[in-house]
Amino acid sequence: MQLRPSTKQVTTFQTVPTIADIQIAHEAIAPYIHRTPILTSQSINKIAGAELYFKCENFQKIGAFKMRGATCAALGLREAERAKGLATHSSGNHAQAVALSAKNLGTKAYIVMPSNAPEIKKQATAGYGAEITFCEPTLEARESTLEKVVARTGATFIHPFDNYNVIAGQATCAKEIIEDCPILDALVAPVGGGGLMSGTALAARYFSPMTKVYGAEPEIVNDAYRSFKSGEMQKNTRIDTIADGLRTNLSEKTFSIIKEHLTDIFEVNEEEIIAAMRMIWERLKIIIEPSCAVPLAAILRHPEPFAQKKVGLILTGGNVDLNKLPFTKA
Amino acid sequence: MQLRPSTKQVTTFQTVPTIADIQIAHEAIAPYIHRTPILTSQSINKIAGAELYFKCENFQKIGAFKMRGATCAALGLREAERAKGLATHSSGNHAQAVALSAKNLGTKAYIVMPSNAPEIKKQATAGYGAEITFCEPTLEARESTLEKVVARTGATFIHPFDNYNVIAGQATCAKEIIEDCPILDALVAPVGGGGLMSGTALAARYFSPMTKVYGAEPEIVNDAYRSFKSGEMQKNTRIDTIADGLRTNLSEKTFSIIKEHLTDIFEVNEEEIIAAMRMIWERLKIIIEPSCAVPLAAILRHPEPFAQKKVGLILTGGNVDLNKLPFTKA
Repeated sequence: MQLRPSTKQVTTFQTVPTIADIQIAHEAIAPYIHRTPILTSQSINKIAGAELYFKCENFQKIGAFKMRGATCAALGLREAERAKGLATHSSGNHAQAVALSAKNLGTKAYIVMPSNAPEIKKQATAGYGAEITFCEPTLEARESTLEKVVARTGATFIHPFDNYNVIAGQATCAKEIIEDCPILDALVAPVGGGGLMSGTALAARYFSPMTKVYGAEPEIVNDAYRSFKSGEMQKNTRIDTIADGLRTNLSEKTFSIIKEHLTDIFEVNEEEIIAAMRMIWERLKIIIEPSCAVPLAAILRHPEPFAQKKVGLILTGGNVDLNKLPFTKA
Repeated sequence: MQLRPSTKQVTTFQTVPTIADIQIAHEAIAPYIHRTPILTSQSINKIAGAELYFKCENFQKIGAFKMRGATCAALGLREAERAKGLATHSSGNHAQAVALSAKNLGTKAYIVMPSNAPEIKKQATAGYGAEITFCEPTLEARESTLEKVVARTGATFIHPFDNYNVIAGQATCAKEIIEDCPILDALVAPVGGGGLMSGTALAARYFSPMTKVYGAEPEIVNDAYRSFKSGEMQKNTRIDTIADGLRTNLSEKTFSIIKEHLTDIFEVNEEEIIAAMRMIWERLKIIIEPSCAVPLAAILRHPEPFAQKKVGLILTGGNVDLNKLPFTKA
């Protein structure tokens, strides 16, 4: 790919991204990301009783929106910092996003991955030229291994969501929806660590203040739902949802934005997630991850606030293991 | 959907469609079909050693290119004929295409389906308001049942491919590729009954004469390959390919066009079809039927004529049974 140099300068944002930060971020990352299409389906609209606009981040570089935030974080580093490389621990899309961002910007990526990460993710990450360090599949092992890698290399840790540049990068996704759709009554995004959710909330606040923003979350990992309702950070006690991108807890940075700007968060169960995923595969004919189906599942379960409204939904990614699909009959 | 009346008149074509026939057909069917997108993948290009343009008929109305031919056939009938309805026998995409064409044009569809047709196809066809008659799952039972239905109703039989209007309708798909892509060195389509293949050959001949046209066919149902090589119509003796859209034999009309205009036909085996299907699902993130993967499989197996060339491939449809995918590990 030929990369145009970006014309605007992104810095490391120290506070909640402003409208200008997100505008600059969007211009800066544009050469490195796809402006993904928005699909609609008359048959799904009929079933949902609403006018739905699906933002297809499954067609994004590396197959997920994570490319936006990682690129924005990498661009925010000073040149001397960036030259020492980017580091993170991840078994999923963020690993690939950091690896490709480093490659695009001519620096090195150091990725800590649990030894049981899917083979396809290991290969994809290595394919972008990242140096992978494997560790035991526990959060403690990931963090301590990452610490050693950072100490050895001087690389900068790019957190997958507790990072204002990452939040600003993810906000560009909702910014594009707002630019490309008729005025939306609502936006719905899935909530994991909250990077996309908080970025979506900020983008709506800045670029379409009348648009209500909702979160959607699996019941099994409903830390954001409970945190939002109680006003206090809650933690997940289980992680066994099929929506594997949403198992993470919120962070302080993402929770404070979510608490302030969301209208509501809806929970859905596993059967509802699989049914919504199947509906999108069958009707839109596109491949999405289980996590992506959570917003549609929420609209189908809680139709009242969306009835006859124009609603944007973010389909976050398309990296699924075709050997392990939930559709096949037992 | 709001339908604009077509401005040009299509008649029932009695001979091989001319360039004007295909132009008129395209204008006439335009209000009833999607102009489907063309996708590219840098990673697949790298693997194939060629520049590939995937025409996404999986996003077409009813999920397959068959909507083009059925609409063109229905529009070609005289008003009094059309008023009596459309009839066909099909267990697949052609049934839905005839059913929706009839609905769009305000007439009735009579579809003969084998009793063992997938539930989802029965429902979809019934969902378009067609009257379905079930029969034993043999070609003889389908034909004799259809005869009775036609005798009773006076409806016109729309053959899925041995029909010049259907061929002209399918030709509009390659016409769009030629209009939307840089000048192509080659076009590759899968061969079943040959409606799409012969239409593709005619469109290339008329609208891009320097573009070579290739067929791609599963080894198990290689009647077109053997017919093309021997110059005499051959029949399949087996039908157990995963590419269920390609099990049919050529007809006189389609074979005569294919014999005259194709550069070559390539065979592929079942493993190659599944691997190519998986590559498209994983890299393009779209849902396609096994039949669609046959052209890519042919290019990967026979790379020489395509090396560094610009090649258009037709992805014919996306109606797969998610309960029966070939990817899941045993």
